[in-house]
Amino acid sequence: MQELSKLLHEGRSRVVIEGVAPEIDGGLFPIKRTAGERVIVEADVFADGHEVISCAALYRCSQDGDWRETPMTPLLNDRWRGAFVVDEVGNYGYTVLAWVDRFRSWRGDLRKKAEVGEHTELDILTGAQFIEAAAKRARGADAKKLAAWAQSLSGNKLNLSAKLELAFDDELDGLIQKYPDRTLATRYGKELGVTVDREKARFSAWYEMFPRSSADQPGKHGTFKDCERLLPYVAAMGFDTLYFPPIHPIGRTHRKGKNHSVVCGPDDPGSPWAIGAAEGGHKSIHPELGTLEHFKSVIKKAKSLNIEIALDLAYQCSPDHPYVKEHPRWFRRRPDGTVQHAENPPKKYQDIYPLEFTSEDWRELWEELKSIVDFWIEHGIRIFRVDNPHTKPLPFWQWLIGEVKRKHPDAIFLAEAFTRPKVMYRLAKLGFSQSYTYFTWRNTKPELTHYFTELTQTELREYFRPSLWPNTPDILNEYLQFGGRAAFMARLVLAATLGANYGIYGPAFELLDGLPRDPGSEEYLNSEKYEVKHWQRENPDSLKDFIALVNRIRRENCALQSDRSLRFHAVDNQQILCYSKQTEDLGNVIVVVVDLDPHHSQSGWVDLSVEELGLEPQQPYQVHELLTGARYLWHGAKNYVQLNPASVPAQIFRLRHRLRREQDFDYFF
Amino acid sequence: MQELSKLLHEGRSRVVIEGVAPEIDGGLFPIKRTAGERVIVEADVFADGHEVISCAALYRCSQDGDWRETPMTPLLNDRWRGAFVVDEVGNYGYTVLAWVDRFRSWRGDLRKKAEVGEHTELDILTGAQFIEAAAKRARGADAKKLAAWAQSLSGNKLNLSAKLELAFDDELDGLIQKYPDRTLATRYGKELGVTVDREKARFSAWYEMFPRSSADQPGKHGTFKDCERLLPYVAAMGFDTLYFPPIHPIGRTHRKGKNHSVVCGPDDPGSPWAIGAAEGGHKSIHPELGTLEHFKSVIKKAKSLNIEIALDLAYQCSPDHPYVKEHPRWFRRRPDGTVQHAENPPKKYQDIYPLEFTSEDWRELWEELKSIVDFWIEHGIRIFRVDNPHTKPLPFWQWLIGEVKRKHPDAIFLAEAFTRPKVMYRLAKLGFSQSYTYFTWRNTKPELTHYFTELTQTELREYFRPSLWPNTPDILNEYLQFGGRAAFMARLVLAATLGANYGIYGPAFELLDGLPRDPGSEEYLNSEKYEVKHWQRENPDSLKDFIALVNRIRRENCALQSDRSLRFHAVDNQQILCYSKQTEDLGNVIVVVVDLDPHHSQSGWVDLSVEELGLEPQQPYQVHELLTGARYLWHGAKNYVQLNPASVPAQIFRLRHRLRREQDFDYFF
Repeated sequence: MQELSKLLHEGRSRVVIEGVAPEIDGGLFPIKRTAGERVIVEADVFADGHEVISCAALYRCSQDGDWRETPMTPLLNDRWRGAFVVDEVGNYGYTVLAWVDRFRSWRGDLRKKAEVGEHTELDILTGAQFIEAAAKRARGADAKKLAAWAQSLSGNKLNLSAKLELAFDDELDGLIQKYPDRTLATRYGKELGVTVDREKARFSAWYEMFPRSSADQPGKHGTFKDCERLLPYVAAMGFDTLYFPPIHPIGRTHRKGKNHSVVCGPDDPGSPWAIGAAEGGHKSIHPELGTLEHFKSVIKKAKSLNIEIALDLAYQCSPDHPYVKEHPRWFRRRPDGTVQHAENPPKKYQDIYPLEFTSEDWRELWEELKSIVDFWIEHGIRIFRVDNPHTKPLPFWQWLIGEVKRKHPDAIFLAEAFTRPKVMYRLAKLGFSQSYTYFTWRNTKPELTHYFTELTQTELREYFRPSLWPNTPDILNEYLQFGGRAAFMARLVLAATLGANYGIYGPAFELLDGLPRDPGSEEYLNSEKYEVKHWQRENPDSLKDFIALVNRIRRENCALQSDRSLRFHAVDNQQILCYSKQTEDLGNVIVVVVDLDPHHSQSGWVDLSVEELGLEPQQPYQVHELLTGARYLWHGAKNYVQLNPASVPAQIFRLRHRLRREQDFDYFF
Repeated sequence: MQELSKLLHEGRSRVVIEGVAPEIDGGLFPIKRTAGERVIVEADVFADGHEVISCAALYRCSQDGDWRETPMTPLLNDRWRGAFVVDEVGNYGYTVLAWVDRFRSWRGDLRKKAEVGEHTELDILTGAQFIEAAAKRARGADAKKLAAWAQSLSGNKLNLSAKLELAFDDELDGLIQKYPDRTLATRYGKELGVTVDREKARFSAWYEMFPRSSADQPGKHGTFKDCERLLPYVAAMGFDTLYFPPIHPIGRTHRKGKNHSVVCGPDDPGSPWAIGAAEGGHKSIHPELGTLEHFKSVIKKAKSLNIEIALDLAYQCSPDHPYVKEHPRWFRRRPDGTVQHAENPPKKYQDIYPLEFTSEDWRELWEELKSIVDFWIEHGIRIFRVDNPHTKPLPFWQWLIGEVKRKHPDAIFLAEAFTRPKVMYRLAKLGFSQSYTYFTWRNTKPELTHYFTELTQTELREYFRPSLWPNTPDILNEYLQFGGRAAFMARLVLAATLGANYGIYGPAFELLDGLPRDPGSEEYLNSEKYEVKHWQRENPDSLKDFIALVNRIRRENCALQSDRSLRFHAVDNQQILCYSKQTEDLGNVIVVVVDLDPHHSQSGWVDLSVEELGLEPQQPYQVHELLTGARYLWHGAKNYVQLNPASVPAQIFRLRHRLRREQDFDYFF
């Protein structure tokens, strides 16, 4: 009933606006962009009858900002499109406004009548009324000009054909468009949101490193001082984000030994994810790593090398965490009064106590967990890699990230949720800036093509930013176990070019560590999770220079700094994957070809969608292979490629402009 | 801010409900069903972690009705499904409720632990607490049973293995499910709507007839008495809805002559759509047809033959309509003070004045227009065919239909909007019960396949009910002009079997009138729109018996009474179209084969999706051709068909059960 009376109130707003995109879950969640990116807005816009419609996208920065507007133009089938750029980090809003343009409708009708000579003085007079009304809405010189126009059309100084000519004056048409009659305009019922992040949310190269394995001698526990010494090594590889697993005191009760053994030796350091001991919890630093001051010094030195430190946010406790005694109600109790440890039956994790997010004291707990983020932000951290967010209540993340970003819109959260797709996607909707993906398990051509088409060419791309990791301390995929050096190179190129955001867990990666704990296992043998390692960083087999080259190519080619343009191209060989990325203006076009077979040379004909890449179907063009520097002359859509995993199993081509041909010279004709 | 505090309030509701379907435009519009139909509800439902979730669809009849509920069960990938039946005509609401089932989670974990012998008394005790809590929620005998169960598990009378057995007691599990703990349940944020119509909205056969051409002698103006005499003729063909073009007084000013001539002879009756004269307007009856009493007599007689009369609702006026003088502000004025006639430049329709729906007096006008519907409803009409709804403001229809159906939920509105697809679909969303379609212009196999797949297998089917017309007084398609008798037969079968709702404009259709006004025109020569016709209804060439047969087949086969199950099947001949419809229980399965070439015999192999049709791939089955009565033995998916347009260009097969074979007899083994 109320709805109908509201409808009756707006009964004269004839234009319909529906099917607005992007719009996530009916506007419940914002889309994501980084500062400087465009938002393309589309909508179905129409009205009854045949009159001309005008349409604009409205947008504003923050809820108190002034509305700005940009015109939308019709595509086919009542679909309209407009675009605006989000300049500032923060939260934008946008919506759509549309109205019947009676002036343009009149003008269109007049033109049709004039074409068959059926225009009359009366028709001209009708238009003059619209112009007169616009003159009243206008100000200053514009108002005078419009009034004079209306006067000329309605007066009797001009004859009919002179009036007709005047009616179609384009300058005057442009003028009247500045003062549209929007009294009966329709405004789309929702304000949709954009979370605007800084560029790193969209384009980043991560390096994961255990600080405790940074010492320069075997058997020694690494410190933040050691980490500082290694920063140039990380910078030389071209990474911009250095992520440390938890740096907090590690529990002793039920501490795991080497290779996840339940028997723990006296010198075993334990898993950094078993957070909390007598020395402190999530706001403390493991004494063997150093002090807070040492840590801040790492942050500072890293910054001078254009590297940001990312911290791990693992909301769980060892049995020795101070919370266990101080806040007994934050943990689930068993009927005998003991605390329930983590389990995924029949597996048990006695060294971990999960937090009880839905206890009666949940508000207090949530505030404390937020204060951990606030603490590290205060000490200079802005990037958080969140451990297993899918095992904590989803509303918690929406609240936490929302609250943090309200004050610190430059904060970045990476979700480590290796779980079912809908949970991963929901976490991204709730606010995570980046998300780990299934990339690690996508190794064949159909798998990669299907998965990355889904991530980059569906609505997902509006809010889910994939982060691609060929390995993590938890995942050593079979492909790396069996494929050797070529497999590591191929996976590196895939991660770094399929994903604008990617990362590796090193030095295990660059040093080609491919040994699993057991056959069929994805766990590393002698995993760094349970022991201090000493890595041979200067091993001549290291991929560090290759990684540095790939990261340089990423920095020098804008096309690789976003995922929205990713397109796969056909190759007549199931072992060769081919895809491209390009900038919107086609100023930078990259075509990548990867041999997915780490054991054999493969060759084939790639079939590019030349027109999408801005090429002429029958023209030659140069391709510049950026890993080797080689240049090739390609022609049209189909071109031959050959890849040898014994050297480099991938090629990264930058398309160069069409070459000059004899037809381009005057003397040819 | 407010949103976050709300979130904080609900922070412990861990289950997420999203992707609910059907949901039209974020719940802005209801879906449509008819009484007795099912609504299948699906949703993505999940929570953090690994606990067991329970989920139910809630639904109620009308906004004040009690909520009922039906369980939803998981499909793949966190998708859940449930269904309920809408029994009563009116408006239903539905939503989704889901919660973490801690009892079932415990039971699942216990089972895994028991499998490896790692279950303990403590584990049993944990579950006993859940059962005890359920006992408190339960009443009477159930409460006692549950309390006793909890007691047995927590007490020390039973040993561990006996307790384990008791924990898995299925009867007790069923009991506890009656008293779930929903204190932290998540309820989907919207109540979605269902417009439940009576069956005719879904399944109807319309016959359009000009009452003025019903006289038994040439040259005479027909009357309602004549119409009454013709009712058995219409009933014999099997139609259930008889639609009359406007029956109101016809204007004289600028009246059109024969064949839409601007010159009007003294005896030319004018177009019935030029409504209004000195004798009255939309609530009056054309004097030459008879009186209101005569009309009510037609309604009554028709009812006795199971025919409902449908009226035309054409909201426009002739210059002589009483409204023009009584309500000058309901019309648009030109600068010289004259009323603006209808035009679509350069075409002019001087005999029609459009109503100005957005004038200052719009509320008064809208109320008056609604009173026209109320008037005819009061006199027994419930079905309205709405002329050109797309040239009146869209909000008007939402208001009008909403208001009318609130009091008369059995009212049916058919939208005659031959316009752009999005406008057609919007009209359906706004409330129209049925809609004319592009069927008239879809004559080839790819056209028909693509269009009817879109209408019946996308979200459209939730709110857009297609009505298929092979001809109308405005549209004589080329296919009928050139195809002769076979074309009429093929189009009749297509309309009547592709569409549960269909209609023909007769007697032009059954008498095979295929003559256009001009070559290339879709207008009928000597169109009934501008003159009184005398039809030779007993012409031996008439298709009336064929039409009667097809309508009988529709009535006898439930599969043809809905469009949701429509599926197209491959045929290795581009001129043969094959499709099927079936009831949900597969009790009635119809396969239709149509030769789209009206000139030549065609044959080919149809390739049925046998499993979808409930057939065994390698088994024989009988098909009963309902137009001829012939029976064929078919086998598996691929079967041969041959069609001869010189006799009947279509076959309508009813699949019969598999035949008995020797293997089915005991002695075979």
